[in-house]
Amino acid sequence: MSFDLSSFDRAYWQDRNVLVTGGASFIGSHLTDLLVELGARVSVADDLSSGRRENLADQLERDAITFHEVDLRDAESVRTVLTGVDTVFHLAAAHGGRGYVDLHQSACAENLYLDGLVFRTAAGLGVDKVVFASSGCIYPLHIQGDLDSELKLTEDLAGPPYNPDGMYGNAKLMGELTLRAMHQDTGLKAASCRYFTVYGPRGIENHAVMAMMGRALVRQSPFEIWGDGRQIRNWTHVYDIVRGTVLAGERISDGSAVNLGTTERVTVLDAAQTICELADHTAEFAFRTDMPVGPVNRVADNTLAAELLGWTPQVPFAEGVRSTFAWYRAHRDPAVLGEVLESLLTSRGEHVPVLTGV
Amino acid sequence: MSFDLSSFDRAYWQDRNVLVTGGASFIGSHLTDLLVELGARVSVADDLSSGRRENLADQLERDAITFHEVDLRDAESVRTVLTGVDTVFHLAAAHGGRGYVDLHQSACAENLYLDGLVFRTAAGLGVDKVVFASSGCIYPLHIQGDLDSELKLTEDLAGPPYNPDGMYGNAKLMGELTLRAMHQDTGLKAASCRYFTVYGPRGIENHAVMAMMGRALVRQSPFEIWGDGRQIRNWTHVYDIVRGTVLAGERISDGSAVNLGTTERVTVLDAAQTICELADHTAEFAFRTDMPVGPVNRVADNTLAAELLGWTPQVPFAEGVRSTFAWYRAHRDPAVLGEVLESLLTSRGEHVPVLTGV
Ligand SMILES: NC(=O)c1ccc[n+]([C@@H]2O[C@H](COP(=O)([O-])OP(=O)(O)OC[C@H]3O[C@@H](n4cnc5c(N)ncnc54)[C@H](O)[C@@H]3O)[C@@H](O)[C@H]2O)c1
Ligand SMILES: NC(=O)c1ccc[n+]([C@@H]2O[C@H](COP(=O)([O-])OP(=O)(O)OC[C@H]3O[C@@H](n4cnc5c(N)ncnc54)[C@H](O)[C@@H]3O)[C@@H](O)[C@H]2O)c1
Repeated sequence: MSFDLSSFDRAYWQDRNVLVTGGASFIGSHLTDLLVELGARVSVADDLSSGRRENLADQLERDAITFHEVDLRDAESVRTVLTGVDTVFHLAAAHGGRGYVDLHQSACAENLYLDGLVFRTAAGLGVDKVVFASSGCIYPLHIQGDLDSELKLTEDLAGPPYNPDGMYGNAKLMGELTLRAMHQDTGLKAASCRYFTVYGPRGIENHAVMAMMGRALVRQSPFEIWGDGRQIRNWTHVYDIVRGTVLAGERISDGSAVNLGTTERVTVLDAAQTICELADHTAEFAFRTDMPVGPVNRVADNTLAAELLGWTPQVPFAEGVRSTFAWYRAHRDPAVLGEVLESLLTSRGEHVPVLTGV
Repeated sequence: MSFDLSSFDRAYWQDRNVLVTGGASFIGSHLTDLLVELGARVSVADDLSSGRRENLADQLERDAITFHEVDLRDAESVRTVLTGVDTVFHLAAAHGGRGYVDLHQSACAENLYLDGLVFRTAAGLGVDKVVFASSGCIYPLHIQGDLDSELKLTEDLAGPPYNPDGMYGNAKLMGELTLRAMHQDTGLKAASCRYFTVYGPRGIENHAVMAMMGRALVRQSPFEIWGDGRQIRNWTHVYDIVRGTVLAGERISDGSAVNLGTTERVTVLDAAQTICELADHTAEFAFRTDMPVGPVNRVADNTLAAELLGWTPQVPFAEGVRSTFAWYRAHRDPAVLGEVLESLLTSRGEHVPVLTGV
């Protein structure tokens, strides 16, 4: 992707020592690309449990980043990779799509420990700023149950009372609250970015949009949809997500959390139809109401991001899904994909059949 | 204190390797005493940040326990003390009374990390059972706001939606949820005990009952009460708390959480009057409505503990407060206490002026 760099404070990033934890992931690798473009000295720490070295292939080939293959649940490793860092973007997490996070509660609970270790070590080493990859999953489930509501999730709706989306959401919420408390008590600079269902190049099939692209590519028939297809999401392109994350790193210091998500309301069924059209695939839909679907109505409000960061999303869904499918088609062999698609849907994304450079 | 051992499964505890984290604390030291009496091989791990070696003086003198002075935020130390352990009672926590937990949110957030480290290390080492010291603080604040309600907090009222008492309550809740998830996913045996405002010998002045005893002993006049005195609590004697904790260690394995608290409703003002009478202290009350008071109405339901553990509290408040005051008077020098009382109220209990053995 090519970024418009004009909205960033390039002097701020020039030669700044930046660590991206989870930087080999889908989102983390795009964030790394942008930070490199901005002139930061970027290192990445990732255990490759769901991230992939291929996502960083260009940067690694050009020697443009330092890559640490480490498990950040190890205190010594965390200390090593954080030493000398000015800004840490903390994206490392046990995470997968809906099928993963719903079925792996204790793995997601480990994020409480992982986040705590990263934050306390950062504070102890005098890291200047922590930017945390939070999630729309922190919003109370009970306000996202009405399909007919035009509700947009403003940041203050997070609670209390809290009702995050499982242990994954709980841990993200605790990460946010911890950073806010650390800022208040110790002055640590921090920002949390609440990402809403992200898609784009390098995305993997455990998330809905990529799963649907996979189904279309292998010409699944009937074409399976989890739930009744009426669930509403605001799929947000990774280009916008990483732009907002860098802007938060520049401009938020008081531990505030800001939504990064579009306000476009798209149903799963609409997304499936769009994708099937792009793939020239005609099939009946089969609704798997036995599969986990998450809240039925989750859409961000993004006025705070506009105010604090001057951020508004630039990629409309129709356009983003088209370009992403073009990327996707170029990076998957339908024959290989057909073999592994089912198991990918509930995994963390191990063994994604990548075929060419990313 | 002398325990009635007849309700315990002595064969279960005989020669069982038990670790009490935070075992030098008020509650932890009584728990240690009981476990030693039951014939367990007890070790204690405590960094003495708020716990005190004096609380374990008898056991240490008799060489009846192994004491590790370690900070359990250090992974290597946690591994060392958990090696070979069958049951860990996890009580170590950044914790103090209302004045501490309300004013030290980021310190309390560190419990997320501490608990995570203890739990994952225990699971990794094959520890048979984890018993977690949780708290009435996990209950939603918004259901504890009505003075006129006779509401008793049954375990299912915890939420979701959640609304725990600050970061301290958040961390306790996450500890519980983590253990439940670990049990479900990996079979780890676990139990959580929700302690309700505990008092008794070795208690310190950052908790209300002991603070009032301190004020009475130094003959404070006017006698200060935080809030308007109408707050309702179910003060529960440490004797009952540690009995219930050991029974949970015997009988709960599926990660369930159980209340340990009486159903006696006592107002702060009533408690203050009782204590002033015991101390023969006559004074006006001054209501400090500027000080933190917590929820106005917090009382446990304890039918689940009766069902699962055969536990009912045995120490009525009137009796417990009398015997505790007798202990208290014997362990504090009013002259010394007068100097430090104010600073104790919002501290973790450092520099408690202990005068004689405990
Ligand atoms: N994809 C989304 O829609 C979405 C939405 C909200 C938030 N997020 C958050 O954004 C971040 C990136 O997510 P993603 O979807 O791009 O991919 P992801 O979930 O694969 O990213 C997690 C990354 O962290 C790494 N990691 C995991 N555990 C680690 C450990 N112990 N030590 C070192 N590295 C470890 C993984 O290898 C991976 O690269 C995550 O924090 C995720 O929770 C993503
Ligand atoms: N007192 C109450 O009313 C009450 C109510 C509910 C729950 N609890 C819980 O019961 C437990 C015991 O509380 P308490 O009131 O007896 O005294 P406490 O709060 O002093 O106990 C905590 C103990 O943990 C130790 N500790 C703290 N951080 C540590 C670390 N990093 N490494 C090693 N040790 C550490 C302290 O030195 C202390 O001995 C705590 O978990 C507390 O949260 C107490």
